[in-house]
Amino acid sequence: MASKAKTLDDLFHDTLRDIYYAEKKILKALPKMQRAAASKELKAAFMKHEEQTEVHVERLEQVFEVLEKPARGKTCDAIEGIISEGEEIAEEFKGTPALDAGLISAAQAVEHYEMTRYGTLKRWAIELGMKDVAGLFDKTLKEETITDELLTKLAESSANARARAA
Amino acid sequence: MASKAKTLDDLFHDTLRDIYYAEKKILKALPKMQRAAASKELKAAFMKHEEQTEVHVERLEQVFEVLEKPARGKTCDAIEGIISEGEEIAEEFKGTPALDAGLISAAQAVEHYEMTRYGTLKRWAIELGMKDVAGLFDKTLKEETITDELLTKLAESSANARARAA
Repeated sequence: MASKAKTLDDLFHDTLRDIYYAEKKILKALPKMQRAAASKELKAAFMKHEEQTEVHVERLEQVFEVLEKPARGKTCDAIEGIISEGEEIAEEFKGTPALDAGLISAAQAVEHYEMTRYGTLKRWAIELGMKDVAGLFDKTLKEETITDELLTKLAESSANARARAA
Repeated sequence: MASKAKTLDDLFHDTLRDIYYAEKKILKALPKMQRAAASKELKAAFMKHEEQTEVHVERLEQVFEVLEKPARGKTCDAIEGIISEGEEIAEEFKGTPALDAGLISAAQAVEHYEMTRYGTLKRWAIELGMKDVAGLFDKTLKEETITDELLTKLAESSANARARAA
């Protein structure tokens, strides 16, 4: 049976295609989140993350090159669900003082999804002896982690207090 | 307009219903993951997490009581997507040496979703002056974080090496 032949290489490739799809989906969602955000600080944070995400996509394309496989995504149901929840919040809390708090929580769900995927991919790259590839994943993982921390700070310093004051 | 009246309390309640739905969904998925896992260690980890998840559900029910609202979930598209990706891996890698590595990656995506939601809820509970509720979220958050770390250790010690050896 074909499935018997599947190994960590296949799992690695599948997960790479999953996160590639997810990053491209996030790249489309970020301009909408920028427009939706109420505060200048949150708009700026989403704009900065859009620039980073472009680099993350490029890094994934480098990994596809190492594997000598075409850079092709695979529908990622997880990111579809996470982003659709964010869109729902943007819609339901539009014009309310809780909007930014909601957008930050949605963005942090996205960051955590990326963190878990990059953490896994980095581990597998090491297992598979691809040290340079592991280094690329590690760079992105660190940037996603920093973005998550920045969002927490933004939430603590402003968005939550504004939402509560309403 | 009704939407103008929405505040952090509404966002808190919506997110509580989201994670309540997610925890109950996870509770149903864990026995399937136990059956799917190849190694005794991973089966045991999923079994232990099932027991913890029952407690997490009870804690959420305590929060609904504090809010004097019925404990009622709200469809969480994110967890639906995350779990369906896990089921896909279980199916596609069944009988292969990469199965447990894949199941661990799926379980860690679940953990990260929970971590981000509980982190957000804890922050909001503090903002809303519900110190005891924040304490309940913090307990669960710590347990999810430990589970995630345990899964990383399991992956590093066995599942990845087994998958590679194939």
